[in-house]
Amino acid sequence: MEPVIITHAAFAAYERIYRANLINSISGYKPAMLIGTQNPHGQTNLAIFSSLVHLGANPALLGFIQRPLGTSGHTYFNIKDTGYYTINHVHENFLTQAHYTSANFNQDVSEFTACRLTPQYLHHFPAPFVQESHLKIAMQLVDEVPIPYNNTRLMIGKIAFLVLPPSCLEPNGNVNLQQVEDVCISGLENYHRVTRIASLPYAKPDELPW
Amino acid sequence: MEPVIITHAAFAAYERIYRANLINSISGYKPAMLIGTQNPHGQTNLAIFSSLVHLGANPALLGFIQRPLGTSGHTYFNIKDTGYYTINHVHENFLTQAHYTSANFNQDVSEFTACRLTPQYLHHFPAPFVQESHLKIAMQLVDEVPIPYNNTRLMIGKIAFLVLPPSCLEPNGNVNLQQVEDVCISGLENYHRVTRIASLPYAKPDELPW
Repeated sequence: MEPVIITHAAFAAYERIYRANLINSISGYKPAMLIGTQNPHGQTNLAIFSSLVHLGANPALLGFIQRPLGTSGHTYFNIKDTGYYTINHVHENFLTQAHYTSANFNQDVSEFTACRLTPQYLHHFPAPFVQESHLKIAMQLVDEVPIPYNNTRLMIGKIAFLVLPPSCLEPNGNVNLQQVEDVCISGLENYHRVTRIASLPYAKPDELPW
Repeated sequence: MEPVIITHAAFAAYERIYRANLINSISGYKPAMLIGTQNPHGQTNLAIFSSLVHLGANPALLGFIQRPLGTSGHTYFNIKDTGYYTINHVHENFLTQAHYTSANFNQDVSEFTACRLTPQYLHHFPAPFVQESHLKIAMQLVDEVPIPYNNTRLMIGKIAFLVLPPSCLEPNGNVNLQQVEDVCISGLENYHRVTRIASLPYAKPDELPW
């Protein structure tokens, strides 16, 4: 069957949910992460994000996209108020609980409670981790870059520390995500199991394999 | 076995490749995409990126992270000079060729030729697509957001059009990435097969499944 071409003029004519599914899924597979925060009074918040992006290894920086602040935005305000947050990988055995953190709960409801996940405090870090997650990242906000084009922002954090099982740390520094059954996301609602099929060497122009 | 804590002080002491592997893999699964460009003289370039991020569905915007410009940066300069680029999903059957586009070829070498992939021009778009890819995105640069903290930048493009097989478009607008054997990446060198295990409904606070 011949491929179809869908132009941006067609996007505008699509029903909103159809368009959201199409555009959110065309960007490919995304990591599934829970961001844990608390406000200055200790009220906890937990939200699933799939927009995490690597920014640099030295210093170790991760970014995520904060959508325009509307009825929600508790994660954003908690990070701005405290300067700290946690990023917790989502595994197969709690992906449904993780997904439901995206419901628009009232501000006085903690998604930890509503979604049956366990807040955990480690190493005196002032934001809650997800106890059920095996790969946890303690983050300190270092910058917030506005994206004026669509009123979103790139939140930039420095990794303060990592918490992980030593068994998933490979000799060359790679973290084996399959061992802890990390899932990935496509679109807004699809969760996937992942199986490593290749590890390829650092590419050099004079060492091509063909 | 008890989890270990790795602090940012430890990162600095690691050997460079070990640190790069650790920090690049802790951000979870990432999409595998080839960005196709050409310079104003028609010299083509192709480069693998795993930092693609969804920015918004209306208008349909995707971003990617451009590293500090050093010996390379052909993709960046071609996009700046022409305003256009293509994003092409990577599938299992050409993942090795896609990986080797990351080698530091001389500017007068096209990665299409060196890595045995086929440039394709569609719909009069002024940048080359990858013929071997089933999911292709025509992109127009709309903004470039500097990230001063580590001298990277977020390149922001608007989707001009999509090219895809109609069979992978699901009734609700989702693109079935598994049907075309899209791969995902972890770290700098690990490629994975992906299997959908769940599609969960839009989450509402009064419709929790427990």
